Amino acid sequence: MESLKIDVALIHYPVVNRTGELIGSAVTNLDLHDIARAGCTYGVENYWVVTPDTQQQELVGKIVAHWTGGYGGSVNPHRKDALSLIRICSGLDDVVNGITEKWGLRPLVLATCARPGQKTIEFEAVRDMISEGRPLLLLFGTAWGLAQEILTGADEILPPLRGVGEYNHLSVRSAVSITLDRLLALADER
Amino acid sequence: MESLKIDVALIHYPVVNRTGELIGSAVTNLDLHDIARAGCTYGVENYWVVTPDTQQQELVGKIVAHWTGGYGGSVNPHRKDALSLIRICSGLDDVVNGITEKWGLRPLVLATCARPGQKTIEFEAVRDMISEGRPLLLLFGTAWGLAQEILTGADEILPPLRGVGEYNHLSVRSAVSITLDRLLALADER
Repeated sequence: MESLKIDVALIHYPVVNRTGELIGSAVTNLDLHDIARAGCTYGVENYWVVTPDTQQQELVGKIVAHWTGGYGGSVNPHRKDALSLIRICSGLDDVVNGITEKWGLRPLVLATCARPGQKTIEFEAVRDMISEGRPLLLLFGTAWGLAQEILTGADEILPPLRGVGEYNHLSVRSAVSITLDRLLALADER
Repeated sequence: MESLKIDVALIHYPVVNRTGELIGSAVTNLDLHDIARAGCTYGVENYWVVTPDTQQQELVGKIVAHWTGGYGGSVNPHRKDALSLIRICSGLDDVVNGITEKWGLRPLVLATCARPGQKTIEFEAVRDMISEGRPLLLLFGTAWGLAQEILTGADEILPPLRGVGEYNHLSVRSAVSITLDRLLALADER
């Protein structure tokens, strides 16, 4: 397998609320920790926290600094490794540009959505791309999910995570963890 | 496939802290929500929150009541469905007895551990048991993981969740989500 070039972005704007309105959501501390830890487990390059709100960006910066450079990092080096993956940025364009600059190649942008979409790509096809060393950016939405403009602008949309039956209201922390496991865990580990 | 008979228990005592000492941990609100939502997605029968601390039990009861019978349940019925899975109890024996009474058959007790254990059973073997309708109880530890007495007393231990490389410090919310997906998602969904 080529080396992994997988990035994850957690979008706080533009997302939708329960009634489908366009909103910006607030950063959640455990989103930072849980997704960073899952990212570190599955070899993710960077975990981009996307919010245009500068106060929220500062808050994320303080939390990350506590765990990477501050007291938290010295008592819990595993948490330091994880939160070191976090990059803060204002919008999705900045994420795509940052990754493109790094690899000299635009990443395939894969959105996720709990509702069945039109541009659905199978997990197996994405695993094949990963094994070919293709840079990928996985987008996850906070609140009630990614805004339509993000879904429309993405190259592909991953299928909704299905378990047993119709209920599919996973937390974004669970959705990121399961998606990374499906895409990146070795077949003989599963 | 036979109907599922899968229960999940989140243990707050006895667990270990960073230095391996036996401790009781505090309940975390997002453990309740995230694991209940994952449980509901994957057809889990009940999600047992295990703590001998009566004040903590009361706290869990209040949170669950808010989302099942209170205001939370009326504005978010999906969350009501999920948190309805929660059962509060004092110790693991009560969980095993409760499940045994329900099915008339003692469940196979499967512990989880981030460190490689001795009684490891493969995910595939557990999937086979599930498809035969065998009642299973999955144990997850808070803090730094299940105490040795719980691991020793379990029938089997699932392999540590591995991603890419050596880092395996997932949150318990991620670990439950990934474990349920590995055991219960349909093969053609993954």
